[in-house]
Amino acid sequence: MQFFKVKTVEQTFALIEDLVKAVQDIEVIPLEQSLHRILAKDITATENVPSFPRSTVDGYAVRAKETFGSSETMPGFLNIAGSVKMGEEVTTPLKVGEAIYIPTGGMLPPNSDSVIMIEHCEDLAGLLNMYKQVAPGENVIQIGEDVKEGVVLIEKGTKLRPQELGAIAALGQTEVTVYKQLTIGYLSSGDEIVPYQTESLKIGQVRDINALTITSLVQEWGAKAIYAGIVTDDFQEYQSRAKDLFEKVDCLVLSGGSSVGAKDYTTKVIESLGAPGVFTHGISIKPGKPTILAIANQKPVIGLPGHPASAMIIFSLFAKKIIEKLSGEKAHNRLDRVQVRLTKNIHSSMGRTDYIRVKLIEEDGQWWAEPIIGKSGLISTLVQSDAIVEITAEFEGARQGEFVPAILLR
Amino acid sequence: MQFFKVKTVEQTFALIEDLVKAVQDIEVIPLEQSLHRILAKDITATENVPSFPRSTVDGYAVRAKETFGSSETMPGFLNIAGSVKMGEEVTTPLKVGEAIYIPTGGMLPPNSDSVIMIEHCEDLAGLLNMYKQVAPGENVIQIGEDVKEGVVLIEKGTKLRPQELGAIAALGQTEVTVYKQLTIGYLSSGDEIVPYQTESLKIGQVRDINALTITSLVQEWGAKAIYAGIVTDDFQEYQSRAKDLFEKVDCLVLSGGSSVGAKDYTTKVIESLGAPGVFTHGISIKPGKPTILAIANQKPVIGLPGHPASAMIIFSLFAKKIIEKLSGEKAHNRLDRVQVRLTKNIHSSMGRTDYIRVKLIEEDGQWWAEPIIGKSGLISTLVQSDAIVEITAEFEGARQGEFVPAILLR
Repeated sequence: MQFFKVKTVEQTFALIEDLVKAVQDIEVIPLEQSLHRILAKDITATENVPSFPRSTVDGYAVRAKETFGSSETMPGFLNIAGSVKMGEEVTTPLKVGEAIYIPTGGMLPPNSDSVIMIEHCEDLAGLLNMYKQVAPGENVIQIGEDVKEGVVLIEKGTKLRPQELGAIAALGQTEVTVYKQLTIGYLSSGDEIVPYQTESLKIGQVRDINALTITSLVQEWGAKAIYAGIVTDDFQEYQSRAKDLFEKVDCLVLSGGSSVGAKDYTTKVIESLGAPGVFTHGISIKPGKPTILAIANQKPVIGLPGHPASAMIIFSLFAKKIIEKLSGEKAHNRLDRVQVRLTKNIHSSMGRTDYIRVKLIEEDGQWWAEPIIGKSGLISTLVQSDAIVEITAEFEGARQGEFVPAILLR
Repeated sequence: MQFFKVKTVEQTFALIEDLVKAVQDIEVIPLEQSLHRILAKDITATENVPSFPRSTVDGYAVRAKETFGSSETMPGFLNIAGSVKMGEEVTTPLKVGEAIYIPTGGMLPPNSDSVIMIEHCEDLAGLLNMYKQVAPGENVIQIGEDVKEGVVLIEKGTKLRPQELGAIAALGQTEVTVYKQLTIGYLSSGDEIVPYQTESLKIGQVRDINALTITSLVQEWGAKAIYAGIVTDDFQEYQSRAKDLFEKVDCLVLSGGSSVGAKDYTTKVIESLGAPGVFTHGISIKPGKPTILAIANQKPVIGLPGHPASAMIIFSLFAKKIIEKLSGEKAHNRLDRVQVRLTKNIHSSMGRTDYIRVKLIEEDGQWWAEPIIGKSGLISTLVQSDAIVEITAEFEGARQGEFVPAILLR
């Protein structure tokens, strides 16, 4: 058996950042199917939004200077000259001494420059009594104030949210250029692993839980999962099925099972897939130390630790980062650790990053993290978890009441 | 025009909590299609997990008492009597004076009670040298320690995450009973609103942005959206199309456009749909005050404010809560507001809850919120936003450097 120096969590993330490159394949898809996809081409405004000056309130379009001095005690007066109709161009200019009713979103008539809110005036038989003055431009969105023609509204590499879809729709663009959806392949191995559909187990067998946890995480991240089933501890078969799957996907995930053969085979299979090969032979992390990460012919390959619960935590941390990098998503301001307080002391080893499953409890607006008791391999502890608390390598644990970073799981 | 006392944000949420009841329709679906669905029936463990005592490490199965006293300086010795094969039942009991090699996940032989890790011993020509003692049960997961037969593993009302799917798979259950997916209907109205696919706008027209923002949010929350198009300001047509859609959905959303007619019509249409009718005629919130909420024949109806950006914020807050209630999801410990620090003073009115769009900036591990300048109706401000800061009604704003709650948008 070979021994390698394990990497720290930070080193591992830095290596992923360095070594994993975006898959550059693009496609043009209808806007309404583009939610959560990654934009592959800047969205440039092809027109001004709005395309005409709009009122932001219900009120009367006026010349601001004709409202100057109006107050509760000394109202100003203007003649009401009709009303703006929604959705229609207004061509008659506002005359001196006139106001015209305008609903929210209505177009300002030529020669008007502001809107006095309906709450601040009164229509007394066609004479508008104004109890407040307005400044030029008040309650108006100018042409192009929302989006100016020619500007880059949304940058390449942005993950499209509902508001981005709305903004693109505002420009009348109906298709977007996005990066192709990633395909992640997953293959289980191990003589003890049987399909999860197996009705009754023989003693010594366990069901393939990863088949669901790993493919579900992939689905949550917007990629497509291919589950290639289970391979028993036969090196030739393991290698050939891994290779077949590897050719079809953007990232290959192997779960080595727990037998010695399976573990050794997983490393050998990964190393046989291409250069430069393995860049992490283990991570100083709990749970999940025996994690293997590699790049083969520019594709990332992940060898997961044996326990399904460890595998899921490792996958959530490192595969998520790998898939983000592959997807072409640009660096973003995403707050992915929240601060919560510990209900009890946690012990941890210096030089190792620990991930502790916790329940969250809200008390007087403060969030507390209650560590869940149970061995790290138990899937039931993940079912109970609301979050995972992170104790980084420079700490020997954390004390009751201390604030610690947590990754939310709900 | 009628005037009503507006409700506070807290009152509105309390009314939703009170008045909106879960849709109880259920269906049985394959486990692998159940991600993010809401469980409608407890998952009870039909068997023990694991079904046999398993090792959590690579090592040697031993009787703990035969390791007692072993140390680096005074190793203990046992004869190695072969190895446990993964996936196979072990029937030969461990004899006194013997150890047997066991991989992680392997079944403990009868008469063994613990496992000594491979790192703490050495195989010297068939004689195991042990440099550490182990306690009974050490490095072993007992039968049923993960999940005990007969216990409720996952409660009805749980939103199924990857780990719940994994845990259900561990039990060999292949189908789950879940609440039916909700259907949310959305109808736009207003003379100025045109389909977003409209290539060039006439002056005065605006594209139907909500069609994408609202239906995308519904999609993010796991419900199905039906977009029923745009109705112009004709009361009869508006009412009949709203009624048709209402019959087909679990919750109806109307966007009243901004013309006076459209606004009045929206209220009238909502009131015509059934008893008890409108329960909120406006909320003391910025943006989004003119929001209407109703229950008609047990179905929630939402009348959104005119601006697409306000509509989206209102929908994110209140429709999200309504859909959660309808879905049958039980109350959960979900941390949905994070604390961030303000880069500048924010002014707000006492008695009104303000939602301020912000960019997030990380500096020395602290997250700062930088308010985005721009009128609240601008969709581009939402595109720039990483989060929304909440200034509740009891505050007159917040100061630079202060911690404030924020809802994350990425």
